[in-house]
Amino acid sequence: MNPETNPMNSDAPLRVMLGERSYDIRFYHGNLAQLALDLRLFCPERALVVSNETIWAIHGCALSEALTLAEIDATVVHIGDGERHKTLQTASMVYDRLIEGRFSRRTCVIAFGGGVVGDLAGFVAATYMRGVDFVQIPTTVLAMVDSSVGGKTGVDHPLGKNMIGAFYQPRTVCIDFSLLRSLDEHNKRGGFAEIIKYGVIWDPKFFAWLEENIEDALGLEQGAVHHAVRVSCEAKARVVAQDEREGGLRAILNYGHTFAHAIESLGEYKERQYHGQAVSIGMVAAAEVAVRMDMAPSEDASRIRNLLARAGLPTSIPRDLEPAQIIDRMASDKKVVSGRLRFVLPSRIGKVEIRDDVPVDLLTAVIRDLRA
Amino acid sequence: MNPETNPMNSDAPLRVMLGERSYDIRFYHGNLAQLALDLRLFCPERALVVSNETIWAIHGCALSEALTLAEIDATVVHIGDGERHKTLQTASMVYDRLIEGRFSRRTCVIAFGGGVVGDLAGFVAATYMRGVDFVQIPTTVLAMVDSSVGGKTGVDHPLGKNMIGAFYQPRTVCIDFSLLRSLDEHNKRGGFAEIIKYGVIWDPKFFAWLEENIEDALGLEQGAVHHAVRVSCEAKARVVAQDEREGGLRAILNYGHTFAHAIESLGEYKERQYHGQAVSIGMVAAAEVAVRMDMAPSEDASRIRNLLARAGLPTSIPRDLEPAQIIDRMASDKKVVSGRLRFVLPSRIGKVEIRDDVPVDLLTAVIRDLRA
Repeated sequence: MNPETNPMNSDAPLRVMLGERSYDIRFYHGNLAQLALDLRLFCPERALVVSNETIWAIHGCALSEALTLAEIDATVVHIGDGERHKTLQTASMVYDRLIEGRFSRRTCVIAFGGGVVGDLAGFVAATYMRGVDFVQIPTTVLAMVDSSVGGKTGVDHPLGKNMIGAFYQPRTVCIDFSLLRSLDEHNKRGGFAEIIKYGVIWDPKFFAWLEENIEDALGLEQGAVHHAVRVSCEAKARVVAQDEREGGLRAILNYGHTFAHAIESLGEYKERQYHGQAVSIGMVAAAEVAVRMDMAPSEDASRIRNLLARAGLPTSIPRDLEPAQIIDRMASDKKVVSGRLRFVLPSRIGKVEIRDDVPVDLLTAVIRDLRA
Repeated sequence: MNPETNPMNSDAPLRVMLGERSYDIRFYHGNLAQLALDLRLFCPERALVVSNETIWAIHGCALSEALTLAEIDATVVHIGDGERHKTLQTASMVYDRLIEGRFSRRTCVIAFGGGVVGDLAGFVAATYMRGVDFVQIPTTVLAMVDSSVGGKTGVDHPLGKNMIGAFYQPRTVCIDFSLLRSLDEHNKRGGFAEIIKYGVIWDPKFFAWLEENIEDALGLEQGAVHHAVRVSCEAKARVVAQDEREGGLRAILNYGHTFAHAIESLGEYKERQYHGQAVSIGMVAAAEVAVRMDMAPSEDASRIRNLLARAGLPTSIPRDLEPAQIIDRMASDKKVVSGRLRFVLPSRIGKVEIRDDVPVDLLTAVIRDLRA
């Protein structure tokens, strides 16, 4: 890992500035005992841990032991593993547990898992008795850099992802990198798609650092993965701090996502564990659109594509998807305003623009050319 | 009606001060056309009107016509009439309508009905795509003075009322007093229980005004009902402005409600149309507790009881409810902190204290003595 970056690699908490809803992201390296002690402040009474069987089978004992030692009175509820369980029905089951267990307004809901667990647990916390405290312990790269910053919570509807939800900030987010060791390869690589995204939309130096250090970071080398996650969280935290409720700037976080959501809803990338892979394809496509709109040099699109490929991420659109199918699906996304498709397009590494004037012919050509 | 009160009886909007979430309550006397024109500002695109069959049968044509003349593109969805329909299942049906109809983030949800419609529509607006605009047109006295101010939205769970919800402010509330003419007597009187509550907890002059003018106000005499509703909204708006998320002061609004919720959940006052009746009984009971705790003169308890009785409201606990049953049910209320029952007790007209040290024996005696 490039030693120049060490000064930024502090273990100090990272503050997400949101006025009275500000909170800290805390970092740990294999220290659930300390993590649990730090959580005590947010658990004055009982806690409900929301997790899934898969995560719990691997890390459940260690977390339970740490919470017990920290004298946190915690009950665990498991939800199914995978995006298909992120529904109002699952949320309803968690409400039942809270209500039947007579959990009070001073309950703390702890999300222990990836994005599905975090989004659903956050939505339940936002809406149980009109809002109880919520903390996150993300266990995937994607959840660490994306869903644990920004306050987006929610569940899916058969006709669309995240259609039901709330903006609700956690009281704290505790990231322990040792939890990533059990992550499977495609899940881990998918998380790095979002990490690379922050380089493209916000921080050209970070993008260059990733070009130097991507293998170390993917190998979970302690300093490298910490730097990659921390800088990503910082970038997202700054964007969110300026635009908590997605009025403007926050839209840049959707770079790659207009394509990604359509690709996810149509086929093989349906399950959340492939979200990063779909975003990777979407970033390549959006970069190519920018080049053909004469907004960006083709070298930048190549650098983006090459870095994603080195991270083991897909860069082609699945062959079985027709351009018209993808464009039609994009038009039904909830971000569509007044019927115009909006894209976040990189004008150079570190800078994006939002455009709603991409001709359908150009879009069709890009999709056709990127199919493999 | 006492002419002294005329200067306060302005038709000007009443501002609820909540920082960037501030909004106006607007007043009308049989002018849905103007009301709809005023709503245009909040409906830049499509609107979804949530109502119920009962209200719609009476006022639906008039509202539809006014919205059409104001060029608001509105779709109507009906929910069942009554508290038993205020469920996650009903909310889910409204989500389906929004999603299947491809309603965007710029949708405005309009609640047209009483408290059930307002609470449920507000919860859907708070959570559809993580929050869309919301306006209220309350059609009952209770919804005008209580549920349309304060931002409480939510649905019930089989084990408790309002267990699932959110704090979410409307963009505006439009009160047209002519809508009250179709209200049945017990529903209208129930709303006056909450109006009298504001006199007891906040405003001794208003209590005295009600002692003078209760019959005119109940008769929907234009100036009197306007004054009664407006002053109640003002009182609630001030309390809410100081404590939006129910950390402290807002608890005084629960005067009468600890008893009321228990009585409602146990028996004949189960349906929302009897909420005010249950609150009336709860106010009498809490006033009696205050007297026996030596906190308040017995004359004040008598004035409260007499005014409620003149408004045609019940002042006795149903004979079939046992004291132990009521106390046990109160202990399961979501407002119970650390296992201690909390009561809002009037120390004099216009002033209340929150106490959690009422002996169970005293409580039992009050309940037994108030049964009829």
